Order: sequence, then structure tokens, then C-alpha cells
Amino acid sequence: MIVRDFNAIVKSERDRVVSDAKWSSVRMLLAEDKMGFSFHITFLEAGSEHTFEYKNHFESVYCMQGTGSITDLATGETHMIRPGVMYALDKHDRHTLVADEELVMACCFNPPVTGNETHQEDGSYALELETA
Amino acid sequence: MIVRDFNAIVKSERDRVVSDAKWSSVRMLLAEDKMGFSFHITFLEAGSEHTFEYKNHFESVYCMQGTGSITDLATGETHMIRPGVMYALDKHDRHTLVADEELVMACCFNPPVTGNETHQEDGSYALELETA
Repeated sequence: MIVRDFNAIVKSERDRVVSDAKWSSVRMLLAEDKMGFSFHITFLEAGSEHTFEYKNHFESVYCMQGTGSITDLATGETHMIRPGVMYALDKHDRHTLVADEELVMACCFNPPVTGNETHQEDGSYALELETA
Repeated sequence: MIVRDFNAIVKSERDRVVSDAKWSSVRMLLAEDKMGFSFHITFLEAGSEHTFEYKNHFESVYCMQGTGSITDLATGETHMIRPGVMYALDKHDRHTLVADEELVMACCFNPPVTGNETHQEDGSYALELETA
């Protein structure tokens, strides 16, 4: 059994915290944990906008806190985001996420993120083979 | 892109809500969604105790609200549960979960739950083939 505490990670396991200018993410589970998915708590700064396209991953995102919107760039459709709303990128959907207030999201990735990926210019993660 | 709202499901999609005497769970993503994992928001009643062993599934559980504890029945070790604590049953660990206050948990299963499983007498879910 693996037990991890978000608050302890933020204090003392900074290698599990990744940040960019307008977002940060705490890696609760990665590929090396052998669960077949990874699990992350992600913060998007109030007023920020992000375009992502995970060409190689399925991702589900559950809003725990904050408000904003997500636009499906294939259809132009926009959905409100508030606590309790989940979106799942079952078609590797290219999308723009807007945080009106700070968003706190619980995210699952399949295949699991290894921790070595970087966002590419097109907003995707490269598919990394686990080396751990 | 799949978009679902926990609050709308609770109001009007009751087939996505499963309950037992002391717990209930909202199925945000199931096997038929083809994400490779399922995602559930689960409530455990204050004062309740549960023994589970998912012999056929890996499960991660992130505490969003409430306090309690989890005991690994193989080692006897007990861990406190409070918001931000996650446990992951990477060894299909048989465990007892105690809710001191009502617990609200975000749960991921691999393989994904189909929605047709029932808890068996030993606390496991049978492995169901997706029929959808």
C-alpha cells in the first residue's frame, strides 16, 4: 500500500511538485508506482488560460475548487467549470482551459505520466517510456 | 470530450449513483467511457467501518473531505486519513477503512469498473468483462 500526503509533499518532497508560469501540479502517483494510471493535484492560476492537447494520453480532470471554462477546439463548444464538474479527454481533445478563479483539479492520466515529460510546443506530452 | 457534473448526476442521473448501507458512490467515468480507468466520488458515512480487498483491481483514493484511518490488514499498520491524504492499493491490499467524520473520496480504478460489479463476501469486486 502506498500512502502519500499532499501537504507533506508540498512541504518536503519538492521533486514531486512541478510548476510553470501559471500552473503547478503535485504528482501523487506516477508510472513507477505501477498502478496503470497517474494521479495529480493541479492548480491553475486565477486569470490564466492554457491550451493543451495530450496526443498520447487520456486525461480526466475533476474540479475540486474554483471556476472557469473549457473550450473544445474541435467543436468550439465551451463548458463551465465549477466544483463537481469533470471533463475527460477521450479523443485526446485539443482544448483551452480558462481559470476565472484559481482552479484546483484532480487529474488522472492513462498511460501514467512518468514525471520526465515536458509540455511540447503543441501543448502535448511526448510519450515517455518508463525508465525507473 | 466527455463533460459530467457531479451535482447534475446526483439530481437526475440516479443510475450513476450506487449506495450501500454506509457508503454511496457517484460514477463519473466507467469502462464504457474507454479511458482505461474509472473515476468515482465516494462518500463513507461518519462512524462507519469497511473492509475491502479489490483482488482484481488497482485503486487509488484521495481524501477531499473528512477524517478517518486506513489499516493495512497484511501489516497491521494504520494511517490517518484527512484531506490531502491518498492511498493506493498497489498490492490489492486487504484493508479496513474507518470514517471518523464523513469521508469524501476521489477514487480511480484500473481496470475500470463497468458498473455491473457487486461487492463479494470477501470485500472484492469480481472482474467483469465490459458488455457495453
